[in-house]
Amino acid sequence: MSPMSLPAAPDTREKLLAAAHDLLFERAGRNASVSEICARAEVNVAMVKYCFGSKDGLLDALLERVLLGLVQELDRLTAVPMTPEAKLRRHVGEIVRNYVRYPYVNRLMNERLLSAEPGAVDHISASFAIPARDWYAALLREGREHSGWRELDPTLFFFSVIGLCEFLFSARPLLERAFDTTIDAQLVERYSAQVSELVMGGVLAPRERDMVASVRRAPGGPPAARRGRR
Amino acid sequence: MSPMSLPAAPDTREKLLAAAHDLLFERAGRNASVSEICARAEVNVAMVKYCFGSKDGLLDALLERVLLGLVQELDRLTAVPMTPEAKLRRHVGEIVRNYVRYPYVNRLMNERLLSAEPGAVDHISASFAIPARDWYAALLREGREHSGWRELDPTLFFFSVIGLCEFLFSARPLLERAFDTTIDAQLVERYSAQVSELVMGGVLAPRERDMVASVRRAPGGPPAARRGRR
Repeated sequence: MSPMSLPAAPDTREKLLAAAHDLLFERAGRNASVSEICARAEVNVAMVKYCFGSKDGLLDALLERVLLGLVQELDRLTAVPMTPEAKLRRHVGEIVRNYVRYPYVNRLMNERLLSAEPGAVDHISASFAIPARDWYAALLREGREHSGWRELDPTLFFFSVIGLCEFLFSARPLLERAFDTTIDAQLVERYSAQVSELVMGGVLAPRERDMVASVRRAPGGPPAARRGRR
Repeated sequence: MSPMSLPAAPDTREKLLAAAHDLLFERAGRNASVSEICARAEVNVAMVKYCFGSKDGLLDALLERVLLGLVQELDRLTAVPMTPEAKLRRHVGEIVRNYVRYPYVNRLMNERLLSAEPGAVDHISASFAIPARDWYAALLREGREHSGWRELDPTLFFFSVIGLCEFLFSARPLLERAFDTTIDAQLVERYSAQVSELVMGGVLAPRERDMVASVRRAPGGPPAARRGRR
């Protein structure tokens, strides 16, 4: 084996990112201090400042990595030859599974969004929100052309779908203590299926529902005239 | 006017709750310190401990009040003679408007849920999550009987609907900076309408979609046999 094929030893930056991920994962979003992160990474505390400028810098880098992974998943999905329905279903499953892998991502994102540092918000916008919204816009357009989806605002749709997928995870203690339910593979599967149905129903709904209504009014006959819609 | 009809002067407890609400509202969930809350309430700092035991006690009382208001809205809605569809639509509109009035409620709830104090979680469960989930269960049952809604897990449905309504508000800085959009009355109306469509489409979807599909396969003829469903 040539030396080139050996994996590079993880450097300090990587160790710190991995330790921060592990701690936030284990705590489902509860804070981890710099000294806890450094102890887990087996790295001197001064390295956080050296590598990332500050703890916020470390958390920003971690968040950016997770969000970048999400956007790369979107790009991969764009390239797959599938109907818009299948893409949307697969995408919803991916977001839900993403919250399983990174249960801290929304808490971290909200903290950074509320940090009142315009730079942090612009960063999240550029690396995640805008590409994701543009992906939704393209998918919704494809769905309209290909499958008669209705006209939906892609920005609002982006917030709806993400929120729909994430609240179960951000309110996890409620799920566990109020409803005595743990997030296991089966629950993730059920949640993902239900969320998919909601989203699919939402993109298809009015046209299909109009059609059903007109069929019900005149069974076997020609479809009744479309009623006016706001 | 008899003395009985005069409104009682707001007491210290009320002043503190109102000041905490005002500050959290203005900051869309960003923290307010005890001294800021007391300065706004024009109350001595010691009164927080006297009235609520601690700052967490004050925030718990505020959260409880908001959540109680939500549950009372559900009770009122139960009593109104309406179809399940109309109830669900009105309910979705109420949740969205609630996030406009109390943009801090989910952040506060998540903080308390993550506080690792089982008491805080149990409190939120008993005063909000369980009554709300039970309301959803009753509504979904009514929808199945009255309008042929499909079988949905009320616990997962609860998390879906709340998440769907809230993310726009918890990620508000993203909306404002990434998409240059402000939350005004018109946007709230549009979001509420879109979320309603998603939820309505979700509760109605499969049965209606099957029906549409069978009608498309055999126009004017008897409905084709239902395909197997996972």
